[in-house]
Parts: sequence; C-alpha cells; structure tokens
Amino acid sequence: MSHTAELIAVGTELLLGDIANTNAQMLSQGLSQLGINVFYHTVVGDNPERLRQAVAIAKTRADIILTTGGLGPTCDDLTKVALAESFGKKLVRHAPSEQRIRDRFAAMGHEMTENNLQQAMLPEGCTVLDNDWGTAPGAAFTAEGVRVILLPGPPWECENMFRYRAVPFLQDLVEGVIVSRTVKTFGIGESAAEAVLRPLMTRLQNPTLAPYAKPTGTELRITARAQTQAQALALIAPVEEEVKALLGEHVIGVDVRSVPEVVLSLLRERGLTLGTAESCTGGFMAKLMTDLPGSSAVFRGGVVSYTNEVKANVLGVPWAMLEEHGAVSPQVAQAMAQGARHSLGCDLAVSATGVAGPGPDERGNPVGLVYLGLAWEGGCYVKEFRAGNVARERVRRQSAQQGLDLVRRKLTGLL
Amino acid sequence: MSHTAELIAVGTELLLGDIANTNAQMLSQGLSQLGINVFYHTVVGDNPERLRQAVAIAKTRADIILTTGGLGPTCDDLTKVALAESFGKKLVRHAPSEQRIRDRFAAMGHEMTENNLQQAMLPEGCTVLDNDWGTAPGAAFTAEGVRVILLPGPPWECENMFRYRAVPFLQDLVEGVIVSRTVKTFGIGESAAEAVLRPLMTRLQNPTLAPYAKPTGTELRITARAQTQAQALALIAPVEEEVKALLGEHVIGVDVRSVPEVVLSLLRERGLTLGTAESCTGGFMAKLMTDLPGSSAVFRGGVVSYTNEVKANVLGVPWAMLEEHGAVSPQVAQAMAQGARHSLGCDLAVSATGVAGPGPDERGNPVGLVYLGLAWEGGCYVKEFRAGNVARERVRRQSAQQGLDLVRRKLTGLL
Repeated sequence: MSHTAELIAVGTELLLGDIANTNAQMLSQGLSQLGINVFYHTVVGDNPERLRQAVAIAKTRADIILTTGGLGPTCDDLTKVALAESFGKKLVRHAPSEQRIRDRFAAMGHEMTENNLQQAMLPEGCTVLDNDWGTAPGAAFTAEGVRVILLPGPPWECENMFRYRAVPFLQDLVEGVIVSRTVKTFGIGESAAEAVLRPLMTRLQNPTLAPYAKPTGTELRITARAQTQAQALALIAPVEEEVKALLGEHVIGVDVRSVPEVVLSLLRERGLTLGTAESCTGGFMAKLMTDLPGSSAVFRGGVVSYTNEVKANVLGVPWAMLEEHGAVSPQVAQAMAQGARHSLGCDLAVSATGVAGPGPDERGNPVGLVYLGLAWEGGCYVKEFRAGNVARERVRRQSAQQGLDLVRRKLTGLL
Repeated sequence: MSHTAELIAVGTELLLGDIANTNAQMLSQGLSQLGINVFYHTVVGDNPERLRQAVAIAKTRADIILTTGGLGPTCDDLTKVALAESFGKKLVRHAPSEQRIRDRFAAMGHEMTENNLQQAMLPEGCTVLDNDWGTAPGAAFTAEGVRVILLPGPPWECENMFRYRAVPFLQDLVEGVIVSRTVKTFGIGESAAEAVLRPLMTRLQNPTLAPYAKPTGTELRITARAQTQAQALALIAPVEEEVKALLGEHVIGVDVRSVPEVVLSLLRERGLTLGTAESCTGGFMAKLMTDLPGSSAVFRGGVVSYTNEVKANVLGVPWAMLEEHGAVSPQVAQAMAQGARHSLGCDLAVSATGVAGPGPDERGNPVGLVYLGLAWEGGCYVKEFRAGNVARERVRRQSAQQGLDLVRRKLTGLL
C-alpha cells in the first residue's frame, strides 16, 4: 500500500523570505528514499488559526503529516498546541523530558526560565522524540488514521531528528529496504547522459536509474527495493557496471562527491604532489583542493598569475611568448604548468588561462575560451576548453573543475 | 486596504527534494517590500488535478495568487491550462508571443518543434508578461476578485519576471512606496549588533530597522513607507547616520555586497594594486577578489604556499624563521605579506597562515587560530584572528574575509 505525506512548515520567517524552506527539500528526499509519496508542501506563519486550517486540509489528502518549526518557547510551542487540538488530544506533562531540559540548563550553567518547561508538555499518548541536537523534543502519534510527526525547525536539528527519530517511527510503513548507489560523472551534461542511458532507463523497473544535474557533475542514481540490504545491492551491481561501461571515461567514481575529492585520493594512493598556476580561475583550483581536509599531504601550493608580470617573474613564462601568442594561448598554458612545477617543486602542476568575462579580452578572445595545461616529469598536455558565453562564475567553476579533471585523467591512464 | 498573496510552486522536482523552493523566498521578500502579506506557500507536483485543488483553496484565502513553474513545453504548459480552467477562461493564441518564439529559435539557428508554439497560447484577455530571460512568456489577469500572476520556474527567469513584469502589475495595490537601504557590516555578529541597536529598533516605527545575518556579514535593513521615493529616503537618512555612528568601524558601506567588493572599489579609486599570500585559506582570498568583474585592473596575483618550501622559495620567508616560530606565527604572516608584495610587485599584499582544521597543527596550534598580515610601502601590520573550533569551511571563509578586511581598514585610515 502506498503512503502519502504532506509537509507543513511553520514560521513567519519563511513567509517573509528571510530563509528558504530547505527542510522541505531534505525531508522530501528522505521520504522519497523510503518510497513515501509527497504530494504537497505547505508553509504557514506563526499563526494558530491559519495553522489549524492548514492541518484540516492536510488531513483530507495525506496519511502522514510532518511539521517543522514552531516547537520552542519563543513561539509559544505553537505547533504542538495546534496539532494536539486538531486531533482532539490534550497536552500532558512528560516527566523525563522535563528532567532533560532541567539537566541541559544545569550543564550549560544557565538559569532556566519557567517558559522552558512548557516544552515538556506533549500530546497525550505520543511517542516522545528525544532531541539530542537541541532543546525542544519532538513528538509522534497516530490519530484518525494519520501519522503525525512534529520536528524542530533549525535545519541541523530537523535533519538529525528526521533521520534518527522519525524514520524509525515510519519504518513499518516501508516494505523491505530501499538502497541507492550514485555513479558520479564529470564532463557530460544531464541530457547527453540521459540520451546514452535512455534504453536502459526505460527497460529498468527495479532498480530504477535517474540522472541528476549537479554543479559538480551529472549523477546517476541507481535505487533498488528489496527485502534485505544485500539483495538490494545485488540488484544494483549489474546496472552499476552497465552505466559505467556506457559512460566510460566520464565516470569519476561511485558514491564520491567531486573531481577534487577523487584527485586527492588518487594523489595520496600514488604518493604524488600537486601544484597550480592560475590566471582566469584566480585561485579557484587551489581553493577546491584545499577545501578538502587532508589536502596538505599532497597539495604543495599555487600561483595566481593575474598579470603578465607575475606569469613572467614568478612562473618564468618567457616575455616573447606572452607577446607573440598572448596570455590566453596553449603555449602560455603549457609554460605556466611547467613553471609552476619547477617553482613549487611538485610532481604534477595544472594551469588555466582564459577569458572569464564579462567581456572578451584585449586580443578579442571570446568569453569562455580557456586553455588548461598539465605538466609532469618529462611530459605535458594542453587542452582547449570552451565554457561558452555564460556567467563569469560558471566559466570559472567549470574551468577549475576541467583543470583538475586533467589530473584525474592522467592518474587513471586516460591521458 | 491590505492585500494577501499566496505562492503556488508547481514542480515534481520540488516534491522529490531535487531542489529547494528558493523562488518562494525571493517572492516573499519582494512582496513584503511592497507591503503585501504572504500567508501561505503551497508546493504541488506536475499534476493537473492536485494543482486545481490547490488553486481552489488559494482562492478562498488570498486575493493575489502567484504561481511559479509549469510553463514550458516539457510540462505541457500545465500551470496555464489549470489556472485558466480554474478561473473559467479559454486559452487563445497570442500572435506577438508566437512571433517572439519563432524569432528566438531562428536567432539561435535551431529548428523549432510545434510543441513550442503552445507557449503562445495564453488566457484570454490576460496581460502577457514578455520573458526577456527565457522562452516561455508569463501571464497576469484579474478574475473573481483575485489577481493571478504566472511566472516561469527557473530562478533567474522568475526573479527578473517578478521584478520587471509582476511588480508593475501589482503597483496600484501599493499605497505610496516602500524603500529600503541596507547598512552592511563586517566583524560584528547579528546578536551583538542587535544589542547595540535595540533601543533604536524599539523606538522606530517608520522607518523600521531589522538585522539579518549573512555569510558575508551582518546587514541592517532600514525600510520606510511614504508617499514618494524622496520622502521615504528623507525618513531613512537620519536613521542611517545613527546606525553608522553606533556600529562605527564595522560598517563597510550602504547597499554594498561584501568586503571584497568594497576593497575592489577602494583600490580602483586610489589607483593601487593588491596581491595575496595564502597558507590556510589556500587561494580563497584570491578567489574572492577574482570573482569580481573588473578585478584584473587592481589584482596582480597571489601565491598559495601550502608548504614551507613554497613559503621559503617563492615568498622568501627565511627558513630560520619557519623553524623557530613555526609556519603559524605572526612573524611568518608578516614575512609572507612582505614577500608577496616583493615577488608579485604590488602596492599592498595580504597574507594568511593558520590552522583550518579539522585537527590542530603539529605544533599544537588550535583549529581556528590564524595570523593575518598586511604589507605596504614602508609598513606592515599583523592581526591574530581566532575563528574558534568551527568547521574547516567556516574557518577558511572567515579568515579570507578578515584578511581582505585589513585592506579595507588600511585604505579607509582605520589601521
């Protein structure tokens, strides 16, 4: 039997646009993974009457209601009061929750005001959802054929309370288990990947295969439903192999996040070091690498050469080359990578020089034209990349990722 | 008379959690600025029947309905069909829109398939909202006492269509004008700013004053309502001065976005150039500067010195200093800035060396301890900054911004 959930977010800050309803996104993903349909999201302010109306509507069209927000003392526990009332339940004092709240304040050395104890008033007969990530406990109960789950609003609390408290409360609605594995690609768009995979996607029923466009590259999610985890994984395995074979060198790994992460682990495995020489990407490649904990073991450093003087004086690019070919040229990309390898003392160095925009450069090179270079002991490779006439941020992000992807390709024998 | 809007977002991708409903946030902010109340957001999938039900409910509780999404050919123009039906209107062919679509395809040199012409079918008697940011036109009409506005889903299109097409259609509902100015700060938290401004906030009625925490620094928004723009600005001016006086050197500007933006315009005004020398921030400062169009006029380049070898060989930090004080020290911060100024040939150079985490460094320096250096002709300044034991990403972002803030302080005479 299939189940339908409605999400009700409570908070005037959402209606004023101070924050986006990211909890709804997280919960929708989680419920989809459980095989539970979500047909509506509703957002309502800190207003008891309008909240009661939203609940009355949700009852008619969903058999699971998840609320977020409106649980703490600053909003008078609005959500708890309204939901208990909507389902004809009284609020009763929950002694263990009261003790938890007293203990929490004592541990922090803060004085507890009486309004905090209101948080220990919970719908009678409910399952109390202990909050290990904040103060206000959540609650879950079943009434009038509807499962009701009340979660706190702060995203960190909401996500953990959903995963560790709400999911167990919903587990009996889920038949078997649902398991996903994600094949991560780089350098192929969502629609191009879909074109290649369309026959496979059409043929499949369990597992299913779905593409997702992310800023870090297209993802192919394979999702299987089975009685056990092992059975689900066994269903996924042959499809995973087929997807990898169809997408070939674009595949950077399974259940990995991004090209820089893959580059970091390849470098660690092989005991090699990396450096960067960046013009148009202006430090973006270095930032992507050093965003990762553990990068200091393999990343030696970089040079951002935003002027010809820095290209010549720090990276040793010959002035004659800069004058003859211009800074945006394959020759200069190669010389930058070789110069960086030398001055930074690293095994591999990657370079980028191009036109980030918003306008063409003084030689008339168009926005989005980028030359990427890779230098190693005894060799060099240069690639022309055209990001197209897109926003500056996008040219830079794509070029930085393309540059680091050259390192991945070299280390996996594709170059 | 006060007006009430309901936002209806159409898209199964929202219910699957593939994206967050950021359009609702943007529209809520925009409507609040117009003095229009938003009482509910609703999200519904690509399902005509459920969309019609959502519209039927919205009609009973709002006199303005704004929909987003479901306009293009891939979703069969779901929203237009359902909304026209809900308000008893026929769809009729709009010749100028048809011509626009044909012209657009011709200009791109693409062949146009017939389903694209469906986008030129619009509710009879509606105001057509020309889409200069995408293909599908929007529409607006008034029926049964409700203003209905249909906007496209992609955020970039939605935002521009709201600002330049929907707002004029709503202007007659707004009494007078609402004008905001935002005092941007850096280096003071939201609660600290609020503590200083509390008496002023309590006293004010028109204009109002509200703090907002942003990753780029706390913002203080002053909003006035008046008959004319000039009257509103006259109400804002004395409050703006008072806020500036109370927050002093934390104020980086009014209606500006971030420290790097302010640094760029200060450097341009004074005809000075900047370079960076980065250890723990790993290229983040260079990236923040080169994110900005026009930065090549003042930003010369940077060195990411993630190892002592690069600090010594490229930046000229003495080995003896690195051994005696360690890389994370005020001495090395100063030497890095001075070395970068020399090797990059810039007027000012800013440096950062510290512990980004996740663990302390090999000398036991704690996560979040960062030394920032600034070197100029004939002088140098070093600042110790403690980001605290927070996530690596946060240490790096805060340190990069703190480093660039030294440049702002120097150029505005605060150092």
